Amino acid sequence: MLGNTFGRIFRITTCGESYGKGRGSGLAVIVDGVPPGLRITRDVIQKELDKRRPGIGKFNSPRKETDQCEIFAGIGQDGLTTGAPLGIIIYNVDTKKVHVEQYRSYRDIFRPGHATYSFFLKYGEYQDWCGAGRASGRETVARVAGGAVAKFILAREGIEILAYTKECMGIRCKEMSFEEIKNNYRKNEINCPDLAAAEKMEEKILEIKNQGDTAGGIIEIIAHNVPPGLGEPVFDKINALIAHALCSIGAVKGIEFGAGFGVGKMKGSENNDQPYMTPDGKVRFRTNNAGGILGGITNGEDIVVRIAVKPTPTISIEQISINMRTMKEETLKPITRRDPTLLGRIYAVAEAMMACAILDALYMARAYDALAKLDKKWMRLKGC
Amino acid sequence: MLGNTFGRIFRITTCGESYGKGRGSGLAVIVDGVPPGLRITRDVIQKELDKRRPGIGKFNSPRKETDQCEIFAGIGQDGLTTGAPLGIIIYNVDTKKVHVEQYRSYRDIFRPGHATYSFFLKYGEYQDWCGAGRASGRETVARVAGGAVAKFILAREGIEILAYTKECMGIRCKEMSFEEIKNNYRKNEINCPDLAAAEKMEEKILEIKNQGDTAGGIIEIIAHNVPPGLGEPVFDKINALIAHALCSIGAVKGIEFGAGFGVGKMKGSENNDQPYMTPDGKVRFRTNNAGGILGGITNGEDIVVRIAVKPTPTISIEQISINMRTMKEETLKPITRRDPTLLGRIYAVAEAMMACAILDALYMARAYDALAKLDKKWMRLKGC
Amino acid sequence: MLGNTFGRIFRITTCGESYGKGRGSGLAVIVDGVPPGLRITRDVIQKELDKRRPGIGKFNSPRKETDQCEIFAGIGQDGLTTGAPLGIIIYNVDTKKVHVEQYRSYRDIFRPGHATYSFFLKYGEYQDWCGAGRASGRETVARVAGGAVAKFILAREGIEILAYTKECMGIRCKEMSFEEIKNNYRKNEINCPDLAAAEKMEEKILEIKNQGDTAGGIIEIIAHNVPPGLGEPVFDKINALIAHALCSIGAVKGIEFGAGFGVGKMKGSENNDQPYMTPDGKVRFRTNNAGGILGGITNGEDIVVRIAVKPTPTISIEQISINMRTMKEETLKPITRRDPTLLGRIYAVAEAMMACAILDALYMARAYDALAKLDKKWMRLKGC
Amino acid sequence: MLGNTFGRIFRITTCGESYGKGRGSGLAVIVDGVPPGLRITRDVIQKELDKRRPGIGKFNSPRKETDQCEIFAGIGQDGLTTGAPLGIIIYNVDTKKVHVEQYRSYRDIFRPGHATYSFFLKYGEYQDWCGAGRASGRETVARVAGGAVAKFILAREGIEILAYTKECMGIRCKEMSFEEIKNNYRKNEINCPDLAAAEKMEEKILEIKNQGDTAGGIIEIIAHNVPPGLGEPVFDKINALIAHALCSIGAVKGIEFGAGFGVGKMKGSENNDQPYMTPDGKVRFRTNNAGGILGGITNGEDIVVRIAVKPTPTISIEQISINMRTMKEETLKPITRRDPTLLGRIYAVAEAMMACAILDALYMARAYDALAKLDKKWMRLKGC
Repeated sequence: MLGNTFGRIFRITTCGESYGKGRGSGLAVIVDGVPPGLRITRDVIQKELDKRRPGIGKFNSPRKETDQCEIFAGIGQDGLTTGAPLGIIIYNVDTKKVHVEQYRSYRDIFRPGHATYSFFLKYGEYQDWCGAGRASGRETVARVAGGAVAKFILAREGIEILAYTKECMGIRCKEMSFEEIKNNYRKNEINCPDLAAAEKMEEKILEIKNQGDTAGGIIEIIAHNVPPGLGEPVFDKINALIAHALCSIGAVKGIEFGAGFGVGKMKGSENNDQPYMTPDGKVRFRTNNAGGILGGITNGEDIVVRIAVKPTPTISIEQISINMRTMKEETLKPITRRDPTLLGRIYAVAEAMMACAILDALYMARAYDALAKLDKKWMRLKGC
Repeated sequence: MLGNTFGRIFRITTCGESYGKGRGSGLAVIVDGVPPGLRITRDVIQKELDKRRPGIGKFNSPRKETDQCEIFAGIGQDGLTTGAPLGIIIYNVDTKKVHVEQYRSYRDIFRPGHATYSFFLKYGEYQDWCGAGRASGRETVARVAGGAVAKFILAREGIEILAYTKECMGIRCKEMSFEEIKNNYRKNEINCPDLAAAEKMEEKILEIKNQGDTAGGIIEIIAHNVPPGLGEPVFDKINALIAHALCSIGAVKGIEFGAGFGVGKMKGSENNDQPYMTPDGKVRFRTNNAGGILGGITNGEDIVVRIAVKPTPTISIEQISINMRTMKEETLKPITRRDPTLLGRIYAVAEAMMACAILDALYMARAYDALAKLDKKWMRLKGC
Repeated sequence: MLGNTFGRIFRITTCGESYGKGRGSGLAVIVDGVPPGLRITRDVIQKELDKRRPGIGKFNSPRKETDQCEIFAGIGQDGLTTGAPLGIIIYNVDTKKVHVEQYRSYRDIFRPGHATYSFFLKYGEYQDWCGAGRASGRETVARVAGGAVAKFILAREGIEILAYTKECMGIRCKEMSFEEIKNNYRKNEINCPDLAAAEKMEEKILEIKNQGDTAGGIIEIIAHNVPPGLGEPVFDKINALIAHALCSIGAVKGIEFGAGFGVGKMKGSENNDQPYMTPDGKVRFRTNNAGGILGGITNGEDIVVRIAVKPTPTISIEQISINMRTMKEETLKPITRRDPTLLGRIYAVAEAMMACAILDALYMARAYDALAKLDKKWMRLKGC
Repeated sequence: MLGNTFGRIFRITTCGESYGKGRGSGLAVIVDGVPPGLRITRDVIQKELDKRRPGIGKFNSPRKETDQCEIFAGIGQDGLTTGAPLGIIIYNVDTKKVHVEQYRSYRDIFRPGHATYSFFLKYGEYQDWCGAGRASGRETVARVAGGAVAKFILAREGIEILAYTKECMGIRCKEMSFEEIKNNYRKNEINCPDLAAAEKMEEKILEIKNQGDTAGGIIEIIAHNVPPGLGEPVFDKINALIAHALCSIGAVKGIEFGAGFGVGKMKGSENNDQPYMTPDGKVRFRTNNAGGILGGITNGEDIVVRIAVKPTPTISIEQISINMRTMKEETLKPITRRDPTLLGRIYAVAEAMMACAILDALYMARAYDALAKLDKKWMRLKGC
C-alpha cells in the first residue's frame, strides 16, 4: 500500500485498522509541521474524534468504538508542543472475537459497493478481510485526529472550518448565513442546521433503515475568514488540493465549489462575482459563485464546498456477489451492523481534510511571501 | 509561483505564457517517466494541441493561436524516445503589439471572474498583466502536450481516454455507449456526440454570444479499458488524483464520478453495482454507479467523470470593478475577444489531465505489484 | 518541524523523543510500501533495535534504553502483513525524574556540538530541552525499526546490507572480503571484523573515555547482491539518495562511495573499473572503485559506502558556552552520561537508512521497468 | 527515466541532451519558486553558463559548446520576473555529423567508468548512444542555468556561494579565508585561488594529459553569510539536502562537511566548535569543524563542503570492454576528445546545486517561521 501521507509542509501520515493483530493494536497519525508553543492537549483531539463517533442515537451502527486518543509524541515537559511532529494513537478496544468470526464467514465474498474486489487484486488473499482494513471508514479516525491539529493551528490564524448536511434523499437544507449555520451546528444527529429539514431527513432515514437500506446525501463544508492569496496558480490550485483531500475520503462521489455544477446553466454575467471596496479598504464580492476561489487562489470570501456522499454500501438486503477464491457467484447475506447513512459522521472527516489542505496551502503561501517581499499594501490585504 | 509540476512518477512540469518577453518566448512542458523505444513524433503531440485550438468556426475567439509544437529533447538519433524526459516547446507567434496595448489599458483593473485580484496579492504589480500569464487558459497548451504523451503510452496499454460535452445551458446529451460516443467524437464544434442536442446547444450559445455573454456546461470524460487495481486506498485514491488533476484546470467548479451528485438521492441497494462473472472468467458489474472506482481503486469498468465548466469570465458587457493601484471602483469596459463557451476546447485539456493521472497511478500500481509478487491468478485479473 | 518522512514509494515517517510528556510516550514509525503476505514479527524489528541499544559493555552510556517495540498496525488476523502500512511503536520506559531535573539544570545553555543553538532559533524556548528531543540520537530508534522492515523485504530479493567500523582514531580495519566481514560481524563491541584492529580500537577508546573525552571514526556500509539498474540518471542517482539517507543521520560529517576521496589522487586509467563477462553470461568488474554505481545506477557490484562519524559531542570536560536566555557566556559543566564513541551503535542506523534508500530505488526501478517493457535480455541481466 | 526534478519549493526540472534529434534540439530547465519583480536577464544566466564552458585553454576538450541561453518564459513586459516559472533553453549548435558517426562507431560498446552499461539495463538498445544523453556532463548545463537563478535570489538575501579547486592529484590549496578565495576566484584555468598550487596542478594535469590519461581532485564549496536556522532536524537536514544535491552530479564520489572525514581521528573536545558572543550580540563560533551545520541546521558560520571528483572516465588509452549487443569482450579504442580533468568546469555545477539546495531550505524555513511566530529575539538572530 502506498499513499498514506497527505500534504507537503503540513503533513499527516496515518496507519492502522480496526482489527489489527498486533499487541495494543490501533490507528495512529504522525502530524508534521506543528508550530512550537501550542497547548494541544488530548482533549483538543478527542473533541473532534467524538464528532465522528457513532453515538447512542437511532441511526448509528450498534458497533461501539470508543476511539480514545493519546498523544505519545511531540509534547514537551511544559505540556506545550515543541515543534516536533505529534504522534497520536487511538487504541482498538472493540475487537470482539464474535465480530472477527462474522467477518471470517464472508471473507472471500466480494461485498458490493466495497473495496473488497480491488483489494483482492492488489493484496490477494493476504488482504485484511477483518473489518475492511484500510478501506474501512474507521481509517478516517486518524485523519480526524490529524485534522484536529490543523484546525487548532488555523483557529490561531482566525480561520474556522465547519461542515453540515446540506441535503439528504432530496430534502434540502435552506440557505443560511455562516453565523446561522454555526449557531445550529450539531443540534441534531444528522447535523443539519435547518431544524425543520433535519426532522424530515431523520424521518426519511429511519424509513429507509427499516427497509434494511441506507441513504446518501450532500455535505457542505465552509472555511470562514480564510486570508486571500492561498493556493498556487497551476497544478496546485487550492481547489485542486481540496478536491484531492476530500475525494480521498471513501464514499465521496463528487465535489463542487461555490455555484458548482450550477455553472453549467449560468451565463458569464450571472456567474462573475462583482467586487466592491468596503469602507475599511478591503476588497469583497457581492456574490460568492466562485466559492471563495479565483484562479485557484483564495479571494477572502468563504470557501464553500459540497461533497456527494454515497449511501453506506453495507445493507441488510441479500445481494448476489462473487466468491473471490472460487471465482463463482455466491449470495451475500444481509449484514446487520451498519450506519443507515454516513452523513451524521462523515462531516467531521470532511472538516479534517479541508483543514489539512488549507493549512498546507497557508504554509506554502507564507513561504513564497517571505521571499517575494511584496509591498506592505499587498501584505495588508492578505492580513499579514 | 509554486506547483508547476504534476505527478509522482509520470510527471509533467510546465512553464510559459502567451505574451512572454523573452526572445523566442513560448510555453513548454518537460515530461518525465517516458518509456524508451516509442515513436512519439511532433505529429502525435500536435494532433492533441489542435483539439484545443480555436478554430475558424462561429464560436471561437478571434485570436489566432497557431500552437505549433517542437520536441526539442528526449528523442534519439533513430527517432525514438530514449527514455529521457521529453522537452516540448510551443512558440508564441501571435503577440501583436496592439494586443499588448489593449491589455495595458486595463492592467490595473481587476477583471471579475478572473485571477487578477489574487495575482495582485501574490505577485503585486509585477504580475503578468498581459494576457493573464499563467492564469490564462493558454497555460493549458503545455498540459495538452504533456497529456498527449501520456495518452500515447496509455494507448500502448490498451487504454483510451475521451471527453465530450455532456450538457450546456440545460441542454443535455442523451445516454450513449462508449462506442457511440467514440463514433461521433468531434463531429461538431461543441463536441457533443448527440448530434441533435449539439445543434440545440450551438444555437443557444450563439444566442448568448450575441448578448455579449458566455455559457457554462458540463464535460464528461471516460477512460476505457482501464485495468483494475489502479489507485491507492487512502490519500491517493485514483478519484482523489483525478480530482486533483481536473480541478487544477481553470474554470472547473466541480467534479463527479459515476452517479456523482446523484448518490445524494440514492439508496444503498440502488447505488451498489452488482458484480457478475463473464464467460471468460472476468469480473464485471451490471451497473456503473461507481464510475469504475471502488475504494479509490479501479474495478475494470470505464472510469466516468464529469466536470462543471463555468462560463468564460471575459464578457462583452460593462462591469464595475476595482482598480488595484488606486483601490477605487472603476468600470471595466466590454472585452470583445473571447470564447462564448469553453466547452469546445476544454475537453482536450480534461483528456490530458485524466491521462496524466491514470498513467501515474499505473506506474505506482506496477511498482507495488513488482514487489508484492502476488499469485498469477490476481495478476491475470489485472491484465498483467 | 518538517521533514519527518523519507522515501518516495517505500516511505518511513517517524516521530517521538525520549522524554515525551504524553501518556505512554514513545517513538514511532509508520512504514508505507510494505508488500502483503510477509511474516514480519516484532522479533524481526527487535533484532535490529537491539543492535543500536547500549549494552552492558565498557563503552556504553549508563542510560538504560530497553527499546522494546510493538507492531500496532498492518498485521492481519493470520499474522502476516496485509499490505497496509506498518505502525511500530517503542515506548519510553527510562524517563526518570532525576534525569529530567538534570536536563532542566542546563536547559538554556547551548551545548557545543549539539543542535541546541539551532533549535533555539527554530523553536525558541519551546524547544524540547529534555533529552534533546528530535536532535537526540534516540530519534534513530524509529529509523532502525523502519529499516528493519526494508531489510526484511530486501532479503526476500536476495539483497543483504551490513555495516561495520572501518576506522577509529587512526586505527584501520584491514581489507576483507564481504564473506569475511560477514563472518566476523558484531564479534566485538566496536563491531570491527578485523579482530586485532578491534582490540586496538577498544583500547584507544577506553583511554580517551578516561580523559572524559570521546572518539570519532569511520563506518563502512556494504549492500551485497544488489541488482543492476537501480537509481535514476539525473537528480535521483542512487548515490544521491543514499547520501541524503546517510547524511540525515546526526553525527555524519561525510560520505564516500567506492574509492571515494581517493579519486582525488587517481588517474582515469586507474579509476575506471574494467568489465568482463563471467562464464555464465553476466557482466562483472575487475575492481570496484565505483562502489557499485555507474552514472548513478547500480552495476551489480557491491555498493560500498563509508561515512565519517564525529566524536560524541557530549563530553565530561567543562566547556564555555552561551546561555540562550540571558545571551551571556556561561560554563557548561561536564556531563557524565555519554557514549565514548558512536561507532558501536550508529552502524545499525546506517544499515537501516541504506536499506530504505535501496528499497525505494528498487520500487522506482521496477515501476519504470513495468512500462518500459524491454527485451528479456536486459531483464535477465537485472535478475528480473 | 525518472527524477528530473530537484527541490520542494524552489524546484528545477531539466531535460535535454547534446545530440537531440528534434528540430531546434537543446537543453532546458524550468525553474519554479521565483519571486516576482526581479531583473533576471539572460546575461545573469549566461555568466554562470560560461563558467562551465570549455575554454580555449590548454586543458579543455576540443569540443566547442557555445551554450547560449534564452529565457523563453517567466519574464513580463517590463523585463522583470512575474513570479511565473522561468523557462530557459540552451540550443545545441555543435551537432556535427562527424561526431554522430564517431559515437555510432562504438555505440554498443560499454565505456568503462561511464553509465553505458547501466543505461543498457534501463533503456536497452534505445538508450541515447550519441553523446551519452542524460549521462553526459552536458546535462549539467541546465542545472547551472537553474542554479544561476537560485544564486541571484540568494544574493538578494545576502548569501554568496563560491567553489574552487581544493586539491588535485595530491597537490593541495593552502588554507585561505573566504575573502582571499573570493579575490582569487577564477584566476586560472584550474580555478585554484592559491596561485602557486594552481601552477603546480596545471603542470601535473598537462603531464597526465600527455599520457592520454585524466586527473581527479577535490572541490570545496562555500556558502557565505547563510542565516542560521535553515534545514530540518530529521531526514531533511541541510547537509542531507546538500549531499543529495551534490552527489547527484556525475563524477562526484564523496562529500564532506567542515572537518569531514577528519572527524574520524578527532576527539570530542577537539571537534566541538566553541561559541562566543560578538560585541553586537551575535552568536559565533571559534572554529568551524561543523562546516556551518549543527544538528542538520545552519548555525550562521560558512557552510563548507568538499566533494571528491573522479578523473574523467574518457581516456586516450585502449581499454578492453564488452559489446552489449554481442555480449562479448571487445577493445574500446582511445577516444581523443575529452577533458583531462573535470575540476576546471565542475565547480560551476557544484555552486549551482548548492544554491538550489540552500534556497529550497530557506523557503522551507521561512514557511515554518511564518506560522511558528517566535519572539522577535529569535527572529533577529536569524536575520529576519
